[in-house]
Amino acid sequence: MCIPAADTPIADRELSITRDIDAPPEALFRCWTEPALLEQWFCPRPWRVTDAELDVRPGGTNAFVMHGPDGERFPNRGVYLEVVPNRRLVLTDAFVNAWEPSTKAFMVTTITFEPLPSGGTRYTATARHWSADDRDQHDRMGFHEGWGACADQLAELATSL
Amino acid sequence: MCIPAADTPIADRELSITRDIDAPPEALFRCWTEPALLEQWFCPRPWRVTDAELDVRPGGTNAFVMHGPDGERFPNRGVYLEVVPNRRLVLTDAFVNAWEPSTKAFMVTTITFEPLPSGGTRYTATARHWSADDRDQHDRMGFHEGWGACADQLAELATSL
Repeated sequence: MCIPAADTPIADRELSITRDIDAPPEALFRCWTEPALLEQWFCPRPWRVTDAELDVRPGGTNAFVMHGPDGERFPNRGVYLEVVPNRRLVLTDAFVNAWEPSTKAFMVTTITFEPLPSGGTRYTATARHWSADDRDQHDRMGFHEGWGACADQLAELATSL
Repeated sequence: MCIPAADTPIADRELSITRDIDAPPEALFRCWTEPALLEQWFCPRPWRVTDAELDVRPGGTNAFVMHGPDGERFPNRGVYLEVVPNRRLVLTDAFVNAWEPSTKAFMVTTITFEPLPSGGTRYTATARHWSADDRDQHDRMGFHEGWGACADQLAELATSL
């Protein structure tokens, strides 16, 4: 009950990418929240996603399976923390269900869809970690390349809807 | 993005106490959610609590300061995950605000207030941890003695309301 308050600034524990995408927030939100759409873009190719289960409400499950080109198979499970339709999603792998702790609280993902005067969207994906070590590991794992490739795939799909 | 799914059973990561208390769920819920009441029972005496800030809604802040008899001072911050008036509270120290990760995701606390036919309440407090190590450490820190003493203080206050 007596855990000291946080003292490592959150700025040292986050990673973020931003893209201006030529599709409206509504299209991007659909790509994030409809399983048949999410499975088309959510992993950098040749990796792919199956079995998306997206119960898009606070406390709802966010689950999917990632498949690698050499038969790798990584099930992922998380929970939505906040849902603002067409504007904002917050989710985390810290829970496998509402509110059962996972075995590793790695990150909170915040996605914002900001409408632009052009009709497009400023898309920002931010990963906030519980530790600076996890942030650094995520950076070395290729956060910017991976999430960047995903954002390109997302843009391609959203502009085709 | 590729964190394997949880595989340590949650049963091995939780600690729990249950008490039948001769006060209605409404009184116990008040003791948990009104700052002036919480400060009277929330720490085993001679420890005490001040500066309780209880924004009792999902995503709301749960903050307070614990003071020890030798001048120890431990600020605590957390967030409510679920609020069912007079029945259930879920909160965690994994966030310092909605939804900023703390520097340590230690536990999720679930409190249930189950009405008994007598008019009293079956009160259950459960701490679920992200790791078995944290659960074991919490056990060694005196979870049962500490939370038990708090439950006694809670019962004393609730029956006096």
